[in-house]
Amino acid sequence: MRTTYCGLVSEALMGQTVTLMGWAHRRRDHGGVIFIDLRDREGLVQVVCDPDRPEMFAAAEDVRNEFCLKIVGKVRARPAGTENTNLTSGKVEVLCHELEVLNPSVTPPFMLDDEHLSETTRLTHRVLDLRRPAMQKNLMLRYKVAMEVRKYLDEQGFIDVETPMLTKSTPEGARDYLVPSRVHDGQFFALPQSPQLFKQLLMVAGFDRYYQITKCFRDEDLRADRQPEFTQIDIETSFLGEEEIRAITEGMVRQVFRRALGVELPVYQQLTYAEAMHRYGSDKPDLRVKLQFTELTDVMKTVDFKVFSGPATTPGGRVAALRVPGGAEMSRGEIDAYTEFVKIYGAKGLAWIKVNDMGKGRDGLQSPVVKNLHDAALEQTLARTGARNGDLIFFGADKAKVVNDALGALRVKIGHSEFGRTHGLFDDVWAPLWVVDFPMFEHDEEADRWVAVHHPFTAPKDGHEDLMDADPGACVAKAYDMVLNGWELGGGSVRIHRAEVQKKVFDALKITPEDAQVKFGFLLDALQYGAPPHGGLAFGLDRLVTLMTKAESIRDVIAFPKTQRAQCLLTGAPGLVDEKQLRELHIRLRNPAAA
Amino acid sequence: MRTTYCGLVSEALMGQTVTLMGWAHRRRDHGGVIFIDLRDREGLVQVVCDPDRPEMFAAAEDVRNEFCLKIVGKVRARPAGTENTNLTSGKVEVLCHELEVLNPSVTPPFMLDDEHLSETTRLTHRVLDLRRPAMQKNLMLRYKVAMEVRKYLDEQGFIDVETPMLTKSTPEGARDYLVPSRVHDGQFFALPQSPQLFKQLLMVAGFDRYYQITKCFRDEDLRADRQPEFTQIDIETSFLGEEEIRAITEGMVRQVFRRALGVELPVYQQLTYAEAMHRYGSDKPDLRVKLQFTELTDVMKTVDFKVFSGPATTPGGRVAALRVPGGAEMSRGEIDAYTEFVKIYGAKGLAWIKVNDMGKGRDGLQSPVVKNLHDAALEQTLARTGARNGDLIFFGADKAKVVNDALGALRVKIGHSEFGRTHGLFDDVWAPLWVVDFPMFEHDEEADRWVAVHHPFTAPKDGHEDLMDADPGACVAKAYDMVLNGWELGGGSVRIHRAEVQKKVFDALKITPEDAQVKFGFLLDALQYGAPPHGGLAFGLDRLVTLMTKAESIRDVIAFPKTQRAQCLLTGAPGLVDEKQLRELHIRLRNPAAA
Repeated sequence: MRTTYCGLVSEALMGQTVTLMGWAHRRRDHGGVIFIDLRDREGLVQVVCDPDRPEMFAAAEDVRNEFCLKIVGKVRARPAGTENTNLTSGKVEVLCHELEVLNPSVTPPFMLDDEHLSETTRLTHRVLDLRRPAMQKNLMLRYKVAMEVRKYLDEQGFIDVETPMLTKSTPEGARDYLVPSRVHDGQFFALPQSPQLFKQLLMVAGFDRYYQITKCFRDEDLRADRQPEFTQIDIETSFLGEEEIRAITEGMVRQVFRRALGVELPVYQQLTYAEAMHRYGSDKPDLRVKLQFTELTDVMKTVDFKVFSGPATTPGGRVAALRVPGGAEMSRGEIDAYTEFVKIYGAKGLAWIKVNDMGKGRDGLQSPVVKNLHDAALEQTLARTGARNGDLIFFGADKAKVVNDALGALRVKIGHSEFGRTHGLFDDVWAPLWVVDFPMFEHDEEADRWVAVHHPFTAPKDGHEDLMDADPGACVAKAYDMVLNGWELGGGSVRIHRAEVQKKVFDALKITPEDAQVKFGFLLDALQYGAPPHGGLAFGLDRLVTLMTKAESIRDVIAFPKTQRAQCLLTGAPGLVDEKQLRELHIRLRNPAAA
Repeated sequence: MRTTYCGLVSEALMGQTVTLMGWAHRRRDHGGVIFIDLRDREGLVQVVCDPDRPEMFAAAEDVRNEFCLKIVGKVRARPAGTENTNLTSGKVEVLCHELEVLNPSVTPPFMLDDEHLSETTRLTHRVLDLRRPAMQKNLMLRYKVAMEVRKYLDEQGFIDVETPMLTKSTPEGARDYLVPSRVHDGQFFALPQSPQLFKQLLMVAGFDRYYQITKCFRDEDLRADRQPEFTQIDIETSFLGEEEIRAITEGMVRQVFRRALGVELPVYQQLTYAEAMHRYGSDKPDLRVKLQFTELTDVMKTVDFKVFSGPATTPGGRVAALRVPGGAEMSRGEIDAYTEFVKIYGAKGLAWIKVNDMGKGRDGLQSPVVKNLHDAALEQTLARTGARNGDLIFFGADKAKVVNDALGALRVKIGHSEFGRTHGLFDDVWAPLWVVDFPMFEHDEEADRWVAVHHPFTAPKDGHEDLMDADPGACVAKAYDMVLNGWELGGGSVRIHRAEVQKKVFDALKITPEDAQVKFGFLLDALQYGAPPHGGLAFGLDRLVTLMTKAESIRDVIAFPKTQRAQCLLTGAPGLVDEKQLRELHIRLRNPAAA
């Protein structure tokens, strides 16, 4: 019925009669002529309604914003000087011959081009919000990304196999969404947190190369970049090692950026987990920020300043510096604000030195702490950080985790700040990297036990098998994350393919054989039947697209997202259900009054 | 690491050294040489282990079924007379140079090529069951089908938009799977029965052409071809009419058959719902069966035989015949068996006439009922059915539904029987058709109210709007089903795009405005803002692939299906959960003892 999309009308169609379907984005009367900006998913075109066709003109007079219209008209050049270079159709307009109102609209609760809508308004009227060109663009790009992922993996011999949504609750990891069973009184399905075990089973079953773009579910307290249901690009392959898996998936992301965005990603850097923590205090460093940590733990052991010497001499403590080139010009107010900022991450304070004039020795330094540092420590600090006149040096001294978190966040904060951007501390580029060699285990202080950093199916490095028992903290995993601009895009590992190694990991995690059998018996069973070496990776599609679109929130790349209170403001989900439904599911409410 | 898949080794690689990864499908010793059929997802290749490489040979001696192996060897021709024409690799074998056991296997609980495994065994050991070549082929074809669907729709400008899995319970239609909310005490999400409303909202939002291959959920009692979670190819488009939507989706299925199966589907027949019921007693007739109903209601009004004249003179009754060419040779036992069969569908009996010799008049007919038919009725029966010597005519006389169900099932049963296949009553072809012009409503006798045949968002035919009120039974919908070989592959409709028409349908269905607002308020709201004309279709992917693979069960085209008791025998889902989990979800069990 339509001959082309509104947004695709261009000089190529000059002189032709076109039929268009779309929405009145704006209507204005000017000199006795009615102009309608007609909008569809591809963009806008200007439609001119002239009074010399009275019937059509009368119809045009009734048109209001968001009316759904069918237009037949002739493409002609816009009058000189009225072109709009922002639009594909900006050099032309359509002289309207026929106008049919396919469906009128009541007055929308807001203007579509209002940039200052609250998120509540946007999510409540999501259908109108989705009509906004930016949202159309986001979701079209999301589709393009997913499709390019599929095309790439298809070419590489991966096949999409669907795994179940109604599965078993495994109370490791995050909280499950549960689904009561009607047929089996007192029993529950769980929605999958990831298809991890199923994809491993598919490898054991010999499918060789698997992928799926699938919904995963975590019933966690929501943060800005989290949703109760999120979409994972899930990949697994047999018979390949770490490097090969990384090469394939890096190739995928590279191709997706090229084809969906026209961007050629630079060469990926590769850092070990240890290096990343050492230099950036983060396992997902934003390499666009041109700042690095300087290690000072050894230097500060002997200073007569408990704030530094305490952490420096305590096992698990760390003292590190962050040199900010040009930072000496920061005001006391700015430094105080950063001091407040690092407290969010558990830092007790934020020591600093302004390097005003290196030539003047201690007199050229301005600092509340420099008096506490003996000459050797001060000299090492300046030498190692590579300090120059005009720099500011921040210090972190605490448990390593606190130093890493606080100074790592400070690094990013300064890099992204107006100061950072104007002082060359931030490169507005795509900065991808691999972080590799994650530890197998980290110690959960509260529970006083070792927990898996990735998940308990991750293989240790060759030769590290015995460390699982002897020195869990030193045991390195065949695990890796892909990081882009400070976001973890995806993570994965080579998996354990031998039952006896898997059992050792369960031992290290203090999962009893009985527990392991109940929870993961089907995996242990499968591993016995000639399971192949295998590994993979899972990417967060929502995050990837958020990065690619530079959207402000993950919710801007999801058609019907939930709020941070896990609600759908459009449909009103979750909602009340009938007593009959609960009865059939063999459950009752604990607090009927609450419902 | 591998140079090619086992199943792809062929004469093209003659003389080359290949590296293969796979599983020992079979191992046999023959004349001091060990033969291993090495299997991967692409098929088998014969590996020959010669004792002249002692280390390799020793490793080969330890190999048992389902060991995971890496093989390096040279491709050579099989000795003349030992070729296997069933295999791509059937003309060659690989002379093994190196053999590495990547992972041994305990003895599997069954032989992979055992054709007589119980479904319980297969589902319990699903990982091994999935290694069977037939299952690998099924799931690879499933993938190919899904990918071809995507490619086709992509070319047609459709975009995949994900709709929520955690949504609102709408107690219309089938039973919902519910998900208790932790954040909102006493409230529940529902898993979607289909993305119907969301895809309509996406049309209102202007996405123009949408598709999704997505999981849907229905908590129904399971039949052979049903699963609690199933996969839908969901399609919706704006600004197109019925014919255009059918043309696009027919083109899709045609392309999928061509590319995934190498099959060119014939021209689709098109029947109205009324015609389909009239001729075949079914809205999903299997057109491979060369039998049709003959209408006799008018003819039997005047016979002195209550069994026929009763239904013929009662509103809603029907008398119809099914002529079976050559059926006169059926034994009394066979006819009795069919009589029992139709009782399943509510028929009280099965009248019949054997046409032995038309030339002899009544004497040439053998029948328990012919004596009750006056000459005119008998003459009409023979004339209308086109009876010939040797035919058998069955009769159905009852409420129309019973006649249609019983005689319709009988038609298919006879067509598929040995008799039908040997008497030319069954064509083993692909027989697709469209059934169109479904009624808007059917009368639910029990509840004494009209219910929607498709769903309440289906548009009536132009000009039928007023019938919704005046004569709901006569109101025809813009609804259509795609049928293939007796299976409903997909169904859809043009939707209502005007709020006032939608309200009329709710009226006809006795859904009060208040109820409609609570359940579908967001749809009614959206329709106010210039909703475009739109419509679509949803296909069952599981069914489509079952048909294409000629699998015996839908469970043979799903990697990890549920049993008919909605259980996963592999993982043991559903299962018990912790009291803590229930407490967090604000629910408790009704029968703690049952759990």
